[in-house]
Amino acid sequence: MATGETVGDMGEIALVERIRVAVGASGAQVEVGPGDDAAVLGVPDGRMVVTTDMLVEGRHFRRDWSSAEDIGHKAAAENLADLAAMGARPVGIVVALALPESTEVAWVDSFLDGLLAETRRGGAALVGGDLVSGNQVVVSVTAMGELDGRPPVLRSGSQIGDVVALCGEVGRAAAGLAVLSRGFRSPRALVDAHRRPMPDYAAGPRAALAGATAMLDVSDGLLLDAARLARASGVCIDVDSGALPIPEAVQTTAAAYNLDPLTWVLGGGDDHALLATFGAADVPDGFAVIGRVIARGDGDESVEVRVDGEPVTPQGYEHFHA
Amino acid sequence: MATGETVGDMGEIALVERIRVAVGASGAQVEVGPGDDAAVLGVPDGRMVVTTDMLVEGRHFRRDWSSAEDIGHKAAAENLADLAAMGARPVGIVVALALPESTEVAWVDSFLDGLLAETRRGGAALVGGDLVSGNQVVVSVTAMGELDGRPPVLRSGSQIGDVVALCGEVGRAAAGLAVLSRGFRSPRALVDAHRRPMPDYAAGPRAALAGATAMLDVSDGLLLDAARLARASGVCIDVDSGALPIPEAVQTTAAAYNLDPLTWVLGGGDDHALLATFGAADVPDGFAVIGRVIARGDGDESVEVRVDGEPVTPQGYEHFHA
Repeated sequence: MATGETVGDMGEIALVERIRVAVGASGAQVEVGPGDDAAVLGVPDGRMVVTTDMLVEGRHFRRDWSSAEDIGHKAAAENLADLAAMGARPVGIVVALALPESTEVAWVDSFLDGLLAETRRGGAALVGGDLVSGNQVVVSVTAMGELDGRPPVLRSGSQIGDVVALCGEVGRAAAGLAVLSRGFRSPRALVDAHRRPMPDYAAGPRAALAGATAMLDVSDGLLLDAARLARASGVCIDVDSGALPIPEAVQTTAAAYNLDPLTWVLGGGDDHALLATFGAADVPDGFAVIGRVIARGDGDESVEVRVDGEPVTPQGYEHFHA
Repeated sequence: MATGETVGDMGEIALVERIRVAVGASGAQVEVGPGDDAAVLGVPDGRMVVTTDMLVEGRHFRRDWSSAEDIGHKAAAENLADLAAMGARPVGIVVALALPESTEVAWVDSFLDGLLAETRRGGAALVGGDLVSGNQVVVSVTAMGELDGRPPVLRSGSQIGDVVALCGEVGRAAAGLAVLSRGFRSPRALVDAHRRPMPDYAAGPRAALAGATAMLDVSDGLLLDAARLARASGVCIDVDSGALPIPEAVQTTAAAYNLDPLTWVLGGGDDHALLATFGAADVPDGFAVIGRVIARGDGDESVEVRVDGEPVTPQGYEHFHA
């Protein structure tokens, strides 16, 4: 399949040099960019928010389903979304990349284009990396952000009586994956959502400023992540299924496959929506109320999530039967 | 080979929870530790130094040559050494780990023991991570450090007339790898140097305080890394081979294999010694002068490194014949 120059042909040192030139130095807070032993980022606030996520070929993406550019976008997006979920503003990322020697250099170039585009969309700069050979493509991104003087928004601050609100739609990425798994390439809105999640990074700091009591990035499914938030806060989250936005493409595709669209909406991850809790009067623009924070039930202390009042055990949607 | 419980048996979520408990929260500068969407590190100085390095099974280590604990040590060490080379003090690391499902949980526990021990030896804390399944073990560490008000020591500051100084011995790790490649397990001093480099992290900030004009971590070979420093600074580095410390085990093993010990000393990496340049009066404790910074020769502007005055082209030692 490989017809162009490969990573093995070019060699690691030449490829790193090529990447360094492509990346350049950029970003207002980059004091030392790529090319030295380490980079230096300015964080006037005196606190650095840091998160890391690894994507493995065959598990998190397939090179026949996602372009190199898609994978670059996704690797940046899922890390930057974690920063947003702390209420932080992205500042910089570093990337380590394992590549089979047969990988075409053109693939690497496109990957970097996607990674850089998404990093810049988040307001951050690529400041360093590592490149090694491996049996399969592994992408490891670490993202760093700043709080600009605000306290971080943790998972543990939800208060009974808060409302639960969602920024962004959930279910499209899971539906897109289902479409691809069945050998189709459309609806494009769903497939694209799987390939390139587009988190609203500014919504994280906006939620923090509005007084979010707790927040997380929905990456493993709405109910599963709601349970994590409820567990950290020692509360129960009751989701109002009627309040959930169900994207039209999810609805029509679920109907075509004879599935309940809530399968994808409640159980799907990878859209990187933000789930947050607020005092009822504090919900900021871009967040839609989808439930409320209630006390753990009497004699039923283990229930972390309910849907329309009914207890659910979210390990993905398969355990949910409303 | 696997007889104990495997990563596949335990499952990702349970394993992550187990790791979280093992790691705990620690470190004076850790404001938010593992368990949320991201960690928060305090950096009162307002600048964060960051570096990332990836280790791939079969390329950077072999599981039959290095224990899980060794690999954990090494993954931390090579990242923390990069911070030291900027004159920075390690504060925190994050680690992403790809593991075959057949990996024993005991292996993961030992890996973490090694990673944590070395991280703590460097004065830092493990603040976050990711765990995914993959075809081979891939370890991706990102390390973050602080400059405590000092400017970073770059590769580009060497001045003609400076002395070149080395902190730590070079050659033992390469000799250890050669020993293992021949099927032996001793001398232990060499094999251990390959398995667990022990950089002197405090030497980095000490060099910065002493006025180091340039510095880097020797990871790919003394001459190759000297060339990088010379290139970044626009100078030539002349190494005095008689001034190089040749560890006794390197000497005796080279003799036994009928090799020149300088093969390993000049060409070997992975010991993570620090190479720095200083004004002649500024060399701090722990650094030994091994050469000097000279101008690029007339009509020979391309020569970045000389050994005893003779030009060399360091792509590892194989191109050097003094």
